[in-house]
Amino acid sequence: MPTPADPVAIARDLIRCPSVTPAEAGALSYLEHLLAPAGFSVDRPVFSEPGTPDVENLFAGIGSGARHLCFAGHTDVVPPGDTAAWRHDPFAGDIAEGRLYGRGAVDMKGGIAAFAAAALDFVAARGPDFGGRISFLVTGDEEGPSVNGTVKLLAWAAARGERLSAAIVGEPTNPAALGDMIKVGRRGSLSGTLTIRGRQGHVAYPHLADNPVRALPAFLAALLHPPLDAGTDRFQPSNLEVTSVETDTKVVNVIPARIEARFNVRFNDRWTPETLKAEIAARVERARAETPLRRGELPPVEAELAFLPVVSDVFLTHAPDLVETLAAAVEAETGRRPALSTSGGTSDARFIKDYCPVVEFGLVGDTMHMVDERVPVADLVTLAAIYRRFLDAYFA
Amino acid sequence: MPTPADPVAIARDLIRCPSVTPAEAGALSYLEHLLAPAGFSVDRPVFSEPGTPDVENLFAGIGSGARHLCFAGHTDVVPPGDTAAWRHDPFAGDIAEGRLYGRGAVDMKGGIAAFAAAALDFVAARGPDFGGRISFLVTGDEEGPSVNGTVKLLAWAAARGERLSAAIVGEPTNPAALGDMIKVGRRGSLSGTLTIRGRQGHVAYPHLADNPVRALPAFLAALLHPPLDAGTDRFQPSNLEVTSVETDTKVVNVIPARIEARFNVRFNDRWTPETLKAEIAARVERARAETPLRRGELPPVEAELAFLPVVSDVFLTHAPDLVETLAAAVEAETGRRPALSTSGGTSDARFIKDYCPVVEFGLVGDTMHMVDERVPVADLVTLAAIYRRFLDAYFA
Ligand SMILES: [Zn+2]
Ligand SMILES: [Zn+2]
Repeated sequence: MPTPADPVAIARDLIRCPSVTPAEAGALSYLEHLLAPAGFSVDRPVFSEPGTPDVENLFAGIGSGARHLCFAGHTDVVPPGDTAAWRHDPFAGDIAEGRLYGRGAVDMKGGIAAFAAAALDFVAARGPDFGGRISFLVTGDEEGPSVNGTVKLLAWAAARGERLSAAIVGEPTNPAALGDMIKVGRRGSLSGTLTIRGRQGHVAYPHLADNPVRALPAFLAALLHPPLDAGTDRFQPSNLEVTSVETDTKVVNVIPARIEARFNVRFNDRWTPETLKAEIAARVERARAETPLRRGELPPVEAELAFLPVVSDVFLTHAPDLVETLAAAVEAETGRRPALSTSGGTSDARFIKDYCPVVEFGLVGDTMHMVDERVPVADLVTLAAIYRRFLDAYFA
Repeated sequence: MPTPADPVAIARDLIRCPSVTPAEAGALSYLEHLLAPAGFSVDRPVFSEPGTPDVENLFAGIGSGARHLCFAGHTDVVPPGDTAAWRHDPFAGDIAEGRLYGRGAVDMKGGIAAFAAAALDFVAARGPDFGGRISFLVTGDEEGPSVNGTVKLLAWAAARGERLSAAIVGEPTNPAALGDMIKVGRRGSLSGTLTIRGRQGHVAYPHLADNPVRALPAFLAALLHPPLDAGTDRFQPSNLEVTSVETDTKVVNVIPARIEARFNVRFNDRWTPETLKAEIAARVERARAETPLRRGELPPVEAELAFLPVVSDVFLTHAPDLVETLAAAVEAETGRRPALSTSGGTSDARFIKDYCPVVEFGLVGDTMHMVDERVPVADLVTLAAIYRRFLDAYFA
């Protein structure tokens, strides 16, 4: 019987590759050399698009059969920021007081390491002809533009005949402790820009100008109140945040001609992108009609609303068996029943949901993207055991 | 009897000097060579200050006696912008259809030319011992930072023993027609910055962040309502304009940490800079106390108010004889009784008022700072006649 694979060593080795998006930095090569000797076929497609950096990706698969479980993740990491602020070099993979330090420890080299260890052990125990297929879909472009990563890798795999039955994304999904939370869907994301136009002029002659800032409160109020909804059965309330406000001029003696507010909505299954756009447009139009901005004979206030392309629609995974199999594995290893949640930001699951049911479960995210990102060594071992237990049950 | 001085030729010659701030471009030298042969003593002090360009200035005087009338102005001009958009080269001094075209035609090379012609004629008629003193206080730094110009030239002259009895600033004061308006004071100008602080975060996790944009409407309302005052006997209402708004981040998935609003107040004699600052601070504090920005256990909203140094205090000229002498000269030449006003922006009169009573009267300002700035030739002749009539009366 072979030595069990060590998720801690794999995570440490991955952390030592400084794979800040879009750099591969040896991380995918490391996975290739880990998986290929165990019988995985490994492909390394590189995707390109004008205006974005080329990105390396990895697809590895083993076994055959209708049941095809795909593990999806990314080896790229966000920059470490001020390296001097870290207690341990962000790319050294130091272990101290039971914790493995480094950029990507939880987001998500640790998750990849746990699944790799689980899959290697599973294949070692059951052999390559275990009656199904396991694949790794790993990109180097999740933290960046997400243009040359998962979305293209899925299409590439589908074109090669890969038919996924289910996918697990190994992003850190637990708010505080391993076992807290499985994600079974995500809210959608819609961004837009509201532009209010006035008339530029000198501050000493306000009657010859028309300050669009005076109209801003009414439009902000219309965007923010009342709340879009109170949440649905499986989703938090939809929420709109104004993420930037900017006047076209910034000189203290000039009344600006234009003010631009950008906003983002995280929306639930009460909405489609279309109904949400219509609701926001109606609110803006109401504010426009009610805003007595202009003085004297000037025309009514002009406001323009523009939406960015929808990058992320809302989805909810309808696959009770898949979810229950994963939840049972989590409970068996942690003693805790994970909440099924759709909270938080977007992930590459938004692309995968178009191919197969997708759930997300990984490490604890509390240090992700922060200085001193770190993972308890014990969590890596437990997560590998959860994934292993899941594989045993999924391919039982 | 000598040939009468020609204000049109002088204005044209000055326009041909491309004296965009801070370039002298021959404009002050031209004045020196115009005035010195007539008996004026001419000085050309250059003032400097770290961080600003050196600026050339001119002080010319003739005559002696307790009554000292100073004419103040500037030969620098704002840039012409897109020269191709002009019907006539902005520095050619073309005359077409009775109008002299060029940058500075009304602001304020035309005003300087009219006063130079009037003073030369007056001195030619009365001789240098006319029983008083006439001076020119001309800077090349009115349209720029106004640091190395009038403010220093006044101190320089005072240190040399010059004691001004009264001053006329030749800025374009007439809204529509020559004779419309004499300025007998100016509102003050106070600028400041309001910073609202929240807590930065990801839009998908608004409960971990605190969006300062949510508090902005309450603070804008407090700044703008109610109006500061309804105006006073001699002044328009004070007016506050928010001239810029800007969040510290402009990324669509990040809740900003900070939003900054800059504002400017043009204030009348109902206020001093100190009482005005106190009023604005009270309004901000009221909005702060009433704004339930923070969610959950976060601390109350932070708002900071900072004022820029006061560059321009409100003033009203109390010199009925001076004003009436000028108004009578205007009425005699134009047939119109000029309004006595304190409207509009600031001018270098804000510096002069600390030395002597100051009034402002010049050309019609409707094309100042615009493409195709121009002045009717007839207005130059009439303005020179008004100034000449004023000198006769002032030194009667
Ligand atoms: Zn991630
Ligand atoms: Zn001017």
